[in-house]
Amino acid sequence: MNKSQIAIKFKALQQRICEGLEKLDGIGIFQSDEWKRFEGGGGRTNILQNGDLLEKGGVAFSEVYGKVSEEMKNQLNFKQGNEFYATGVSIVLHPKNPHVPIIHMNVRYFQIDEDVYWFGGGIDLTPHYVIPAQTEMFHERLKTICDKFNLDFYPKFKQQADDYFYIPHRNETRGIGGIFYDHMSSNNSSLTKEDFVKLALQLGDNFVSIYSEQVILGRNLPFSQQEIAWRNLRRGRYVEFNLVNDRGTKFGLHSGGRTESILMSLPPNANWEYNFSPKENSKEFETLTYLKKNI
Amino acid sequence: MNKSQIAIKFKALQQRICEGLEKLDGIGIFQSDEWKRFEGGGGRTNILQNGDLLEKGGVAFSEVYGKVSEEMKNQLNFKQGNEFYATGVSIVLHPKNPHVPIIHMNVRYFQIDEDVYWFGGGIDLTPHYVIPAQTEMFHERLKTICDKFNLDFYPKFKQQADDYFYIPHRNETRGIGGIFYDHMSSNNSSLTKEDFVKLALQLGDNFVSIYSEQVILGRNLPFSQQEIAWRNLRRGRYVEFNLVNDRGTKFGLHSGGRTESILMSLPPNANWEYNFSPKENSKEFETLTYLKKNI
Repeated sequence: MNKSQIAIKFKALQQRICEGLEKLDGIGIFQSDEWKRFEGGGGRTNILQNGDLLEKGGVAFSEVYGKVSEEMKNQLNFKQGNEFYATGVSIVLHPKNPHVPIIHMNVRYFQIDEDVYWFGGGIDLTPHYVIPAQTEMFHERLKTICDKFNLDFYPKFKQQADDYFYIPHRNETRGIGGIFYDHMSSNNSSLTKEDFVKLALQLGDNFVSIYSEQVILGRNLPFSQQEIAWRNLRRGRYVEFNLVNDRGTKFGLHSGGRTESILMSLPPNANWEYNFSPKENSKEFETLTYLKKNI
Repeated sequence: MNKSQIAIKFKALQQRICEGLEKLDGIGIFQSDEWKRFEGGGGRTNILQNGDLLEKGGVAFSEVYGKVSEEMKNQLNFKQGNEFYATGVSIVLHPKNPHVPIIHMNVRYFQIDEDVYWFGGGIDLTPHYVIPAQTEMFHERLKTICDKFNLDFYPKFKQQADDYFYIPHRNETRGIGGIFYDHMSSNNSSLTKEDFVKLALQLGDNFVSIYSEQVILGRNLPFSQQEIAWRNLRRGRYVEFNLVNDRGTKFGLHSGGRTESILMSLPPNANWEYNFSPKENSKEFETLTYLKKNI
């Protein structure tokens, strides 16, 4: 399977996910924005705003190529090559109701010249209020998909998510983790290139169903001003992670990527309150106890 | 003048500025938070929330010291040394009324072992709506202070502010600039160490008066929901600059500084809207025309 075929599959995946999310939302419609990149390639950024479930959701497809830069080598950790090619689908959904979690998914394919390639991707969940049974269900679904490909994947990818989605300056995880993989190819695993495409598509095609299970409990629950205030503070943490820690965001912004597509991951709003800490034994306090690394 | 004497002067400056700002605000009171740093030193972070003028304002003093790290050498651009000492006052004020600008000030002293030192500092203004006459008044005040010390300072420090307070991924300046200086000592200028302390204190002691001139026009103007929405988007840009571009913030967060004191610079809230651009010839559109580099 060549790079263009992978991009075609990813673009079709974006379409299916948006259709599924519109059904899940009920009233929200994605607005689609096609853009070109001066140095080569472009993308389609789909944004849903002010839906019933989703306050702001982005599902972005991109296919970009061009000359390899020194910064790219450093950031993506490879030594040589002239031309790069990258295609992927990225999703971030910010729900309105504080009882519904934020979710993120990404699948991507990267190629250098015609000989070297790798895949990356993952799904992770950021509940405003952590519910352990929901966390378990989420991980179970991801494990089921990974296990179809290689039994080593889930524990490895889960650990990588725990390591990656961590905010050192807060000593907090971004959420309850999920899976995260990068630099995967047939050189370092039993899977063929076609298998990795399948893995990406299975994650993508299960995404709406996985998220549906996570929203069903909370989406119709009433919420208070205090819960909204907490949601907004958690959105603030999401902003901090994405702007301070997320390698993809930093690399994108510093290498001249399309700012609006990169920053579609930011919530519609966020709050900061100096030295806020929730009352002991409150729901908010309990949630923080789940956001510790390696628990 | 030794480092402790400078720190004492800076701490007293913090106190005077807070008193001045409380008077200016009318109802807001600073809450004071003393903190210690495990590796050496500490600080006093003063925060005013929900005042009449200021929605959130922070005035932070710190005096920290310890072993020089490799990261510090890279970030602060020096080659050798064992022990560092740093003291300074930082201010960020986020007003409630969109017709009043955000302001930032910093004065700092840095020393390596007992022989090498330098000063840094600056004041810059970020109006939600730029008013050219106000911009001129602001720069005039800064020029008057700088000119008392060295006629080369103002043009040089102004250029440095224009270069520093710039958001490349938005192709926008953070605001209308001001002055910014760093690595200044008697080695690279006609001023003595005592003169640099005087410069820092003069900036600090003029700060409330300079800001007063900037708030007087706008603080009692009525404002609409649309103006609030614009203020919140501009606050979003402020968050982006501070988390993505600001060297001090990045260095602080990555080197284990006190997170709450570093991030006191963030606004109480911020908004992001995908691909927002103001209507042509609107007030918001006009403001963006002033936020271009080197105009």
